[in-house]
Parts: sequence; C-alpha cells; structure tokens
Amino acid sequence: MSSTWKNNISFTVFGESHGPAIGVCMDNVPPGESIDVDKIYKFMARRAPKKDGTTTMRNEKDIPQIISGFHNGKTTGTPLVAMIANSDQHSQDYNNLSRLARPGHADYTGALRYRGFNDIRGGGHFSGRLTAPLCFAGAVAQQILEKRGIYIGAHISEIHGITDKAFDPINTSRQDIIDLKEKDFPVIIDVQGNEMKKEILNARENQDSVGGIIECIAINVPAGIGSPIFDGLENSIAQLIFGIPAIKGLEFGAGFDVAKMTGSENNDEFYVNERGIVVTKTNNHGGILGGISSGMPITLKVAVKPTPSISQPQETIDYSAMKNETLVVKGRHDPCIVARAVPCVEAAVSLAVLSHMLEYPNF
Amino acid sequence: MSSTWKNNISFTVFGESHGPAIGVCMDNVPPGESIDVDKIYKFMARRAPKKDGTTTMRNEKDIPQIISGFHNGKTTGTPLVAMIANSDQHSQDYNNLSRLARPGHADYTGALRYRGFNDIRGGGHFSGRLTAPLCFAGAVAQQILEKRGIYIGAHISEIHGITDKAFDPINTSRQDIIDLKEKDFPVIIDVQGNEMKKEILNARENQDSVGGIIECIAINVPAGIGSPIFDGLENSIAQLIFGIPAIKGLEFGAGFDVAKMTGSENNDEFYVNERGIVVTKTNNHGGILGGISSGMPITLKVAVKPTPSISQPQETIDYSAMKNETLVVKGRHDPCIVARAVPCVEAAVSLAVLSHMLEYPNF
Amino acid sequence: MSSTWKNNISFTVFGESHGPAIGVCMDNVPPGESIDVDKIYKFMARRAPKKDGTTTMRNEKDIPQIISGFHNGKTTGTPLVAMIANSDQHSQDYNNLSRLARPGHADYTGALRYRGFNDIRGGGHFSGRLTAPLCFAGAVAQQILEKRGIYIGAHISEIHGITDKAFDPINTSRQDIIDLKEKDFPVIIDVQGNEMKKEILNARENQDSVGGIIECIAINVPAGIGSPIFDGLENSIAQLIFGIPAIKGLEFGAGFDVAKMTGSENNDEFYVNERGIVVTKTNNHGGILGGISSGMPITLKVAVKPTPSISQPQETIDYSAMKNETLVVKGRHDPCIVARAVPCVEAAVSLAVLSHMLEYPNF
Amino acid sequence: MSSTWKNNISFTVFGESHGPAIGVCMDNVPPGESIDVDKIYKFMARRAPKKDGTTTMRNEKDIPQIISGFHNGKTTGTPLVAMIANSDQHSQDYNNLSRLARPGHADYTGALRYRGFNDIRGGGHFSGRLTAPLCFAGAVAQQILEKRGIYIGAHISEIHGITDKAFDPINTSRQDIIDLKEKDFPVIIDVQGNEMKKEILNARENQDSVGGIIECIAINVPAGIGSPIFDGLENSIAQLIFGIPAIKGLEFGAGFDVAKMTGSENNDEFYVNERGIVVTKTNNHGGILGGISSGMPITLKVAVKPTPSISQPQETIDYSAMKNETLVVKGRHDPCIVARAVPCVEAAVSLAVLSHMLEYPNF
Repeated sequence: MSSTWKNNISFTVFGESHGPAIGVCMDNVPPGESIDVDKIYKFMARRAPKKDGTTTMRNEKDIPQIISGFHNGKTTGTPLVAMIANSDQHSQDYNNLSRLARPGHADYTGALRYRGFNDIRGGGHFSGRLTAPLCFAGAVAQQILEKRGIYIGAHISEIHGITDKAFDPINTSRQDIIDLKEKDFPVIIDVQGNEMKKEILNARENQDSVGGIIECIAINVPAGIGSPIFDGLENSIAQLIFGIPAIKGLEFGAGFDVAKMTGSENNDEFYVNERGIVVTKTNNHGGILGGISSGMPITLKVAVKPTPSISQPQETIDYSAMKNETLVVKGRHDPCIVARAVPCVEAAVSLAVLSHMLEYPNF
Repeated sequence: MSSTWKNNISFTVFGESHGPAIGVCMDNVPPGESIDVDKIYKFMARRAPKKDGTTTMRNEKDIPQIISGFHNGKTTGTPLVAMIANSDQHSQDYNNLSRLARPGHADYTGALRYRGFNDIRGGGHFSGRLTAPLCFAGAVAQQILEKRGIYIGAHISEIHGITDKAFDPINTSRQDIIDLKEKDFPVIIDVQGNEMKKEILNARENQDSVGGIIECIAINVPAGIGSPIFDGLENSIAQLIFGIPAIKGLEFGAGFDVAKMTGSENNDEFYVNERGIVVTKTNNHGGILGGISSGMPITLKVAVKPTPSISQPQETIDYSAMKNETLVVKGRHDPCIVARAVPCVEAAVSLAVLSHMLEYPNF
Repeated sequence: MSSTWKNNISFTVFGESHGPAIGVCMDNVPPGESIDVDKIYKFMARRAPKKDGTTTMRNEKDIPQIISGFHNGKTTGTPLVAMIANSDQHSQDYNNLSRLARPGHADYTGALRYRGFNDIRGGGHFSGRLTAPLCFAGAVAQQILEKRGIYIGAHISEIHGITDKAFDPINTSRQDIIDLKEKDFPVIIDVQGNEMKKEILNARENQDSVGGIIECIAINVPAGIGSPIFDGLENSIAQLIFGIPAIKGLEFGAGFDVAKMTGSENNDEFYVNERGIVVTKTNNHGGILGGISSGMPITLKVAVKPTPSISQPQETIDYSAMKNETLVVKGRHDPCIVARAVPCVEAAVSLAVLSHMLEYPNF
Repeated sequence: MSSTWKNNISFTVFGESHGPAIGVCMDNVPPGESIDVDKIYKFMARRAPKKDGTTTMRNEKDIPQIISGFHNGKTTGTPLVAMIANSDQHSQDYNNLSRLARPGHADYTGALRYRGFNDIRGGGHFSGRLTAPLCFAGAVAQQILEKRGIYIGAHISEIHGITDKAFDPINTSRQDIIDLKEKDFPVIIDVQGNEMKKEILNARENQDSVGGIIECIAINVPAGIGSPIFDGLENSIAQLIFGIPAIKGLEFGAGFDVAKMTGSENNDEFYVNERGIVVTKTNNHGGILGGISSGMPITLKVAVKPTPSISQPQETIDYSAMKNETLVVKGRHDPCIVARAVPCVEAAVSLAVLSHMLEYPNF
C-alpha cells in the first residue's frame, strides 16, 4: 500500500471508515505559515453530505484535531498531523457486504491485495470518507498558496449530460473562484445546477446514481515551476487526482479535443502584454508546457464515475465462497458524489502546486 | 528537474537532443531476466521516423548500447543502463530558435525553470527524441512481462477526427496485440489508417500538423496489484504517461463517458466464469478498481496534441529581449507524432505494470 | 524536515513534546501480521523513566492508541498509525529556555532551520520523548521478525568507562536476547551494571551526566538481504540510528578496531558447517558483507553522548538577542540516557531489518 | 539493488568492473554551475592507483566522459551523466574466483542477493572500481560548494596503529584543506605518513594488507542545514559513507570517546564571537546538533578495514558446490586502500552537504 504521496511535500492519508479515526500526516510543510483553522473547517464542510437529498445522509461531524506541527497559529515545519475521530458508523448496514463484492468497488481487488486482512467495514481504507483528510491537507495548502496570490477553484462541469459554462481559461478572476466556494452546489450558472440536481434526484428515485465532470482552475501560479520529465506539474497532479476514488479521466487544457485540432489551431501564440508580462492569446495548453507552468491559468477536467453503491439488485460474486450471488446494497447512498468531489479535486491540485512552489526561488 | 521516476523500479531518462548521447539508467530491475536485444531494436524501430512522409525525415540510427547490468544475455540485478549516441544533429536548422519561443513547446518555460542554462539545441532535454530511451526501458519491461503471459499493445484510436475500431475490452487476445506491433501504421482497421494518413499528408501540405488519440490495452495482468491510495495502477500509469511530450489527456475504461452514465449502466457486474475465474460482464472500469488490477484487461486512452513545430509563420516572443516577434520554424517536422507515440505509451504502461508486478507474491 | 524514513517500509515520527500528542505513521507494513499490543507496551516500558534515580522523574504514561491499520488483532496492510497523548508537560520548568541555547541541544540549530517557528517547549520535535513512537514502530517490527525466528537485542556495553561483556558474535542465542529484555538495567554481567549505576548516581550528584556505548545483535537474519550500494543493511541501519538523539558513532563488527588489524586477521574465513550451512569462523564483518547479510549475527555498537541537560551553570548565548549569557537548566534531568536508548537502538535495527526482509523471496 | 541515493540531489552509480563502462547519473544538480573538468580529473586521480607499491598496479585510465546535463562549461539542470569506459580488465586473473567466496568480499552474499546472475568478473558491481563514478559526482559537488566558500578535505588519521595529527576542529583553514589535496599521501604530518607507508609495504611483503581510519572535515557549512529526524546531516552522510566498500565505522565529533565523558566535559558552550557570529568553544558535537549544522566545522572519522584481497592461502567455500576449499587469490592487490578511500570519503560528505545546501534559502 502506498497511501503516501512523496514529493517536496509528502503526506500519508490514514485510517479506516469504521476504525477509531482517519487523518493525514504531512511532512515538509514550510514553517511559519499562518493557518486559519475555521477556514479549514469551512473547506471541509464543502465535502460533507448535504441535507437536500443529493448526497448520502451519513451524519459526519468531521472536526479535524491538529496534533502535531502547529503552534501559536502557525506551522512549525515539523510533521503536520490532523486526526478526525469516527463516530457515526452504522456497521450493521454493511454487514452483508463482507463477502459480496459490490460492483464498481474495490471490495474484491482490495481483498486480493491485502490478502483478506483489510478492514472492510464501510469500505475501510477505500471509503470515500478518506477524502476528508485529503481535504484537510488541501485546505492547508490552499491557504498557503492564497497568501502568495494563487487561487485554485473548481466547479461541476457536467452531470449526466447537463453541462455548466466553462471557466474562462484566460480571464478567470480571484473573485470568480471565491464566489464558487461560497455556493452550496458549485456551478457557474445556477440554472444549470438546478437541472443537474433534478438528474440526481431522479437517479435517487430510481435507486441509481449519476456521474459527471469537474473542471478546476489555478490562477497566478508563477511561470517556471514543475520538474519534468516525470515530476512535472501534469505528472504530479495526475498522480494525486487518481488517488480520489471514482476518478476515471483527466485532461489538461484542450485535453481530448486536441484529437480534432491542427497544430495551427492548437498552438497558443505568445506575446508580451502591456504590463510587460509574457502571456498566450489562447490557453489550449492549460497553463503547462513541458510539465512546467507558463504563467497562464492551469486548467484541467476530471471524470467522476457514478457512485457504484446503488440499491438496485446487482449480480456479483461471493469472493470468499467463489460463487455467483445477487447483491442488494442497503443503507444510505450518495446518488451523486460529483459535488462532494469538487473540494477533493481542489485539494489534489493545491497540494501538487504547493509542492512544486517549494522549488520556486522566491517562494 | 526530476527526470527520475521512483517506484519499485526506478529509472532516469538522460541526455539532450544534440549532446553526445541520450540514455536511460534503470534501478532494481530483477536479476536473471533474459533480454533479447534484437527485440528491443525492433520495439524502438516502431518509434523511429518513417520514410512515407508521415513523420520527420530526421535520420536517427538509435542503436542503444547496454553498458551496465546485463551479462550473458540476462539482467544482473544491478543498474541497467543503455546509451544511444547522437549523430545526425543539424544544429544549424535550429539556430534561430535560440531566443524565440516556439508556441506549444517548452522553450520559454524551460528557460525559466533552468534559469537559461538548459541546452536548447533541438529541444535539448525536452526533445521528443528523449522518448527513445523511454522506449528502451519499456521494451525491457515488456519482455519481462511477456514471459509471465502479460501482453501490452496500443493502436491509433483517432487522428484529426478519423477513428479506428476500439479494442475489445473483454476478449482482446495475445495475437491481436502481436499483430498490431507488426504494422507500420498501428491501427486495427487498415482502411481507417489510410484515411488517417491522408489527413496527415494533408496537414503536411498545409505546413500544419494533426493530433490524435491512442488506445492501449494490457491483458493477463493478475488481479491484485497496485498500491493505493497514491501508488495505485492508475496513479503510476498517469505519472509516467504525462512524461511523454504532447500528452494532454488520459482516461481509463469508460473514461469521460462516465459523465453521461448511471451507476447501473457503468457498474461492471462480477461473475465466476466456467473456468472458476472471477471476471466482469462489462469492462467500464478498465481493469482497475480502487487502484488495483481486477484481472480484466487494463484499457486506457491518451490524447496527443498536434505537433507544435509547424512551418506556418507564428507570432511569439523573443524571451531574452522580451519583445514580440514572428517565428518561422525551419527544418523537417513531424506532421503527426501519434504513430510514433504508440510505442511510447506501451512503454509507459509496461514500466508501470512491471513495477507493480514486483509487489506480486508469485512474480 | 524529514521526519519520514522512506524505504520498503516507510514511517513518519510526529508530534512535539508539549503538543497534544506524539505518534508514528507507518506505510507498507505487510497485512495479516498478528500484533500483541501488551507486548508493545512492555517494549515501550523499557524506554520509560525508572524510579531508581538513574533517569529523569518525568512521569510519562506512554500508552499508544492504534488508530489505523489494525483490525481483529492483525495488521491490515493500510497505514499503521499510533498516537500517544501528552499529559505530564510541566511547561513552566522550561520557560527560561525559550531564548537561551542549551549547549549540546538543537535549540539554536533548530531555531535556524525552522526560522524560529518550531515549538521549543520541552525540546519540541527534538525531544527525546519522540523516541517513544520510534519504539512503538520498532516493537511492531520486532514482533513480525520474531515470528520468522529473527531476534534483535541490545545491552549497555559501556558507561563512563565501565564496560560490560560483549555479545558472543557467533553463538548468542534467542534466550540470551530474551533474558536481556527482562532486565531493568540491560547488561550481561549484572555486577558491571551496578558499577555503571554508581557512575550514573555520582554524575547526578554532581549535577552532571555520563555517556556510553550500546551493543546490538540480530540473530537468524537470513543471508542475502540488503540493497547495495546505497540501501545496503549498513546504510539503512545507519540512517535510522542517527535519527536517535545523542548518537555520535556507529560501527559494525570489528568497527574501528580494523585500523589496527591486517587483512589476514580481519578476514572471516567461510566454511560449510555440519548442518550444511555456510558460516564464518570469526565475525569481524558483523554479519554484513557488501551491504548484504551473510547469515551470521549482525553486530553493531553505537556511541551515546552524555545527556546535554545538566544542572551546572553553563555559558551560552541568547540566540534571539544574540548575546552571551549564563544558563542554569532547571527541571528534572536524566543523568544518563544510555539504558533508555537501548530499546531505541533495537527499534532502529528492527525497522531496518524488517524493511529489507520485504525483499526476501521467502518472507 | 539500490545503487541510487535519493535525496534533494539523487544519483545512481552504475556499471561492472569488467563490463563496457561504469558511471554515474545525477538528478537535480542545480543549473548554471560552472564545472572545471580538469579539476574533476585531478580529484579522481587522487583515487587512482599509485606506482610506489602502496596500491594495486591495475592501470586504470579513468577519464570520465560527460554525456548529459553539461553545456558551455556549465550544468544545465537536467541529469548530469558521466561514463568511464573500462579498458584494462585482466579477466583471466580472476577466473578461479567464480565459485570460491573470497573472505571479506561480497562474492557469496552478492550471489545470494542476485540469485547468481550478477557479473562477478573483477568483483562486478561490488568492485572498489565503482568508487570512481562516486568520486566524479563528489568532485562536481565539491566544486559547487567551493564557490560558496565551503571546503571539504580528508586525511589518513591512522594506518595499522600509526596515527597522524588530527584536524583542528575549530581553526582548520581553507588552505590546510587545499594543501592536503596536493599531497600524494594525504597526511598532515609527513613523517607519520612515511611510517604508515612502511607498514603498508611490510604488509605487502607478507602478502597481507592493513586497515586504517580517515578523518574528514567540512568548513564554512552555514548553520541551519539538515532535515531531522531521518534526513539530518548525520543520517545522510552515514547513508552515503556506508556505500563506500570496506567502511565499518563512522563517528562524528568526539564520537566513541563520549562514552568516557561527562556532560560538562562534552557539552560545547556557545558564545557570540567578536565578529558577531555564534560559535562554540569546543567542537565535540562535530558541527552537527540535532542533525542540523551549527556553523562549526563538521568533523567525522571512518574506519576502513584491511583490503580483503590478500595473497595468503585462505580457507573458504565453493558456494556453488557448497563445499570447503582453500583459496589463493592471484593478481595484483592493494595492500592498503585507505589513501585511495580518502577522496571517496570527501565525495560522500560533499554530496550529502550539497544535497542539504539545496534546502538553504540563500544557496
């Protein structure tokens, strides 16, 4: 298992869904950074279940307790560790999962990898709940970056075919990003958000779930960070993004659309603007060239699969008895996790950017 | 710079396009693996320029010389190092690049990152030429995997809107993969390949270039490898894939299509087949669940942008004088690098899979 | 800061002496290993202060709570995390340390490294207290190793010139090691231990402290583990050993005595013994050749400096005001930490050996 | 195998004694550093065999060729790779080694670790010859450090009981270090060097060898570098030092002598000197406190065992047939490698210090 991401900043996400606690242990966070703990709670609340039927009803009180590396309101430079106690566990709801592999889940593959010893209650270490400590770490990273003027935001780009407007890849502002973070349902065009919610509630009624796409932007990242060939910004962001459960795709800038473009259409011409700064006229490169930031906004999209936990009967196996069975997953499920994944994507991108910012001479 | 990928197997890609040599240094390759050097040459030849006008005419004789870690036809377990001498360099063709940033290239971002000291001749360390040592490493990995029955192949899925048939995500055979490797232009449906070639030659005539999509499959990867959360198969493949120049997107299994699917459509139901093996009825998960192989074929797609080097005049900057200029790139360019990127994608996936296979008890 | 050790097994030691808690986060511990928690407590108790005047009187109740990676009495393969709450803190005793650098301590160097933001109460992250989580991790490693027949023990070899008998480098038995762990004052010859205690009490009376040497042995480590050149057994053990505060020297086998020996004296001749096993007649190599275990007992010695915290007045600096001052350290100090360092040395060696055992095919 | 050292600067030492070439691949060397290649040759010549009978007569022309990461006399920031072709190989001299384990060598342990597939000709990857690329890397590091005023030197402290004067741990000057590097036989007191040489020639006459101790010093290392707990200066230096063959011990500052000292004797009192700089009155801490540099000279000693290759008959095993045999090693051997190990120790310390200097804000 490597629940550890190793870079200029390293961190380990730990814990199981129904164990005593989950948390994160970060190494090499720079000393002397002021951290506003209330702002962390606020960030993490964006990942918490909503009461409007669009998410699970699991009542999580995810109050992280910082137990190392934080003193007098500032980071100390020693490992920064936060713990979130588990309380509302409902183990009984999951009892029949113990030998039946939920389709789309890591029950079967996890049992193989950990030779049957992993804690499977509530998904164990594979639970989406483990994104809570990731969000803690991302919230810390985001605060450190915002002090340098770097803002990272994300919105729901699509849910079950309903799309939101895209970020302006050239002119998205700090305020645009701040406004999104205040929203209960993070879309740019609220009426589109309402359509999405209808799809979600519809899926819920059908004991089903829906997937979607999240778009993320990072503005004011200075040009010149990233360590190619294998530790460029795209490599690092990718390695973290695929650590979020349910993510099945990632594209930067024009992404998969490049397959229909010519070089003359796709190339972003450079110019020195009126303030003497190098910029590009278009931003198909998504702010990254050769793994290194260009100074333009970093833009990326991720694909989030529909929540695999659905209440419809599904055919599957009992991986202990190795025979075919029918599964009906009980309990309360998220009909859509895209909204809850938005801060997770922000967290992953923030951690990658902060880690590479440590390479920056003027950090 | 981290031109080093650090995993169970680590490797560093080194060299500059117009320096004395390029190469790769691999650490922790298992001892006692027979390597057929001719088969490596054959693999690398798939990456070399073609003479049919669809690629650059640069005449590279990429004969790797193994200088460490190989004895009596077998790996020794000590670092495996191969070097490819540079010969056909044409530095004069690139002279006017020295201060003009080619749009879509890493000229400007590289100059910032390496404070102006990187060797920019021919793209230096950012040159596509550096994929030759990656292919060496991948060819070694592929041979080691094939001895365990694991086959990894790729084809061009799309070029400038023209599509090839997709791999069968359930039943692609060893022979299907072997056949593809024999083809000059790696597509499943040759008539579609001919249409693609027309698009390429057309782009070339217009002093332009085209992009595309590559699909890759890995069959017979045993269930149970990968080290989530941050070193799962998807994380590792992603970190390597984005080390190939021009890649802007990556998706596993159903990928971005999940945004239009419901959970009941996307979930792949498990069953024990007649041979007593656990399989899934569909393969939207692309052979990976929770970062761990399920035993089903691993499938993924990558987006390749159009070659940024085009002969049309482009507006750009002189990043030394910080003023606006017009650039006309001279020399011979690839109107399309998608075909040449096919073995690079295979190499990246092979290296990630081999590295995780070292975790496998029965390797 | 890298409070993280990165190897086949990785772990981070976290916390500050007077923060909410200290602990350790281990990654890649194999799944399915039974761990006896009471045995961990017993191991850790060997590091705790004694009531006989030979150590500090700080009343630490170091009860580790496992919060991740442990289920039904077995490791799960996911991160294994233990936390030890801080209770008896006496911050007031240390108040005058805040700007005066204690000679021999990391007060001044730590303030520079962490730009003045590290938590200095009680030594903060530099406190000897941080060896408690190291001992937790080492106790876990030791249990996993003992199930494979590998036993690791240590004793006080010397304190202030008084020496104990050395381990038999060929024939030390499992029982010899078990017996040592039961002793309050870990020496082989108890009368020598009594002489050492007199030196300690004498130092204490003089408001001074004494240093010493610890010898450690690991038996039944199979031949063939270790990953030279830079991750051999000696490299890994050394990197961990120097993570224990106050260690200033390390030698393997004959160690510094080799400077007075000839090759014919120092070389350990091999032979196949009556049981068909390869052994050496002598063990000057300390069980490691070329960074790889030979199958002979691994033997090493470490030098432990006298506790720098002494009550005698010392000249030093106020590193905030940058002026010379006289310091009188108040509070209760260890006149000798050698005995308490014994399990720490065992822990470091156990963790290094376990990490390399994961390379062993038959693990 | 991990012939890779992973730190802020990473490097892999590759090659076998009788393979095509040996070399080193360094990652993350800062760009723009001027490197004087002749000065590298001069550094490496200090490691080469001498013609005065004190070393092997193997005629190595170790001319490293830089093949990556170096342009216009400066580092580029991309991987810095140097290769040294093997020429004078004398494989025939070693023929009877193929199944007989040389006592004190890694023949037997290496065969186990690499399952019999490692190249054993001339010691293969375990050959002392592999210290040539280490010296290349160290020579590069040393030049980069010297531009910042940091000088690192070493001398023979003892050979077979004959001792040299120690470095002044407070006042050793840049010139003292430069002078040592000019000497054929690096001792401070030349008459003592002559006595040592007599011991060496005497050993040679007896078909034997002798061991010794090397002392190393690093001056002007700024206070505040090193990343405790497990990546402090002592940890990093130790990990590299034990990568030099034949090293069996390492101590910093007062080292093992601390076992006979009291705290009041060992503690180094701080004061602000007349230039306003914090220094210590004594330097028992060897310039490192808590793993972090104090600004005082860094001092350390390493124990070098007698060359195991001696011409006297030795009892050993045929590890292929698993039976007892008598071995007479033919060929030309070093009766003492201590002098040749001096630049290797400097190289290891220089690489560790440079790597940690990258953490220094003003580097």
